[in-house]
Amino acid sequence: MEKLKKMINERGEVKEGNVLKVDCFLNHQLDVEFLYEMGEELYRLFKDEGITKILTIEVSGIAIAAMAALFFKVPVVFAKKCESLNLDDDIYSGQVISYTKQKKYDIKISKRYLNEGDKLLIIDDFLAEGNAMECLIDVAKQSGAEVKGIGIVIEKGFQPGGKKIREAGYNLKSLAVVEDMKDGKIIFRDNN
Amino acid sequence: MEKLKKMINERGEVKEGNVLKVDCFLNHQLDVEFLYEMGEELYRLFKDEGITKILTIEVSGIAIAAMAALFFKVPVVFAKKCESLNLDDDIYSGQVISYTKQKKYDIKISKRYLNEGDKLLIIDDFLAEGNAMECLIDVAKQSGAEVKGIGIVIEKGFQPGGKKIREAGYNLKSLAVVEDMKDGKIIFRDNN
Repeated sequence: MEKLKKMINERGEVKEGNVLKVDCFLNHQLDVEFLYEMGEELYRLFKDEGITKILTIEVSGIAIAAMAALFFKVPVVFAKKCESLNLDDDIYSGQVISYTKQKKYDIKISKRYLNEGDKLLIIDDFLAEGNAMECLIDVAKQSGAEVKGIGIVIEKGFQPGGKKIREAGYNLKSLAVVEDMKDGKIIFRDNN
Repeated sequence: MEKLKKMINERGEVKEGNVLKVDCFLNHQLDVEFLYEMGEELYRLFKDEGITKILTIEVSGIAIAAMAALFFKVPVVFAKKCESLNLDDDIYSGQVISYTKQKKYDIKISKRYLNEGDKLLIIDDFLAEGNAMECLIDVAKQSGAEVKGIGIVIEKGFQPGGKKIREAGYNLKSLAVVEDMKDGKIIFRDNN
C-alpha cells in the first residue's frame, strides 16, 4: 500500500535493535482516518474468503482490526496477554516468546468467542519473528476454526516470521514489507 | 442510550464483587458495528466542544475511542499501562490503584502526543471508582491540555467515580449508568 510506505518513510523512525517506531500513527497515537483506509484495503485483499470473525491480539492490533471489521461486518475477538494463566477450562491458550521484549507471556481467548465453523482473518500491526502469530494460529486451531487469511500492517521481511507462515501454507498479506532498514534507511519489498 | 441498556440487559452478566461482564460486545469480543453507533452517540454529545484529540487508556478504551474519533476526525492517543516506569523525560506519567484488580500500575504517555492547546475528550469503557480516570485527567493537566469532556460507555453509579469527577467540574457523560445490580438485576439511572 503506497500511502503506508509513504507514512513509514515520513513519520517512522528506525531505532536500535531493528525497531521501527511508528507510534505517531499506529501504536500510541492513532491516525484513525488512515487506519480506516488500511481497514478498507484489508477488506479488498480478503473479501472473498467468507470471513466470519477477525482475530487479533492486544494492544496494537485492536484498532486496525476494528476498522477492518467495519468493512467485513463481523465481530473482532482479541487475545488477552497475561503474565500467568489461571487454570480455566473456558479458555484456549498459548505461550509467546517475544523477540522485541525478550520475555515470555501467555495469551488466552474465551472459548465462547472462537468456534468450529468460524472462518478467521487474523490481523496484527507487526510481523517480525512470527512468534505471536504462530501462537494465534495455534489457538485458532484449538477451537476448530479455520484461518482463511492473515493481514499484517508492517512485515519485517528481514526477520523469518513471514516466510515461515507462508511456507506453512497460510494466505498471508502485508500492507508493507520492510526488506531492510540498515543505517536508518528503509527499503521496501516490491509486493504489488 | 437505550440500545446500550438493552444490550447490557440481554448480554451482560453480573458476577461476584460488583463485576458487570460485557465481554461479548465491549471488551473481549467487540461488536464493532455497535461500537460505531456508540462512537456516533459520543460525537453527538460532545461535538460542540472543539475537540482536537481523544485520550483513552489501553486496553478496552481503544476500540470505542477509535470509533468516536472517526466522527470527530481527530487522532486518538492511548495511555500505556506498565508495571514500573523507566525514568524518561519524554513522558507524562501517573499511578493508578485498581479497585477491580486490587493492584497498582503506572501509566505513561509520550510528551509528543499531548500538547498545550489540545482540547481533549477522554473516553473509557467503564467508570467505577474513578482512579484510572483521575490519573488520565492528571496526565492531561501535566501537558497543559484542556479536558473538554469525558465520555464513558458504562458508569457504575453506585461507586463514587462519577460523582467525584462531576463535582470537580468536569463535563462527564455516560452512555449508560448502572444504579444498582444487587441480586443480578441491573437497574439503570434514568439519564435522559
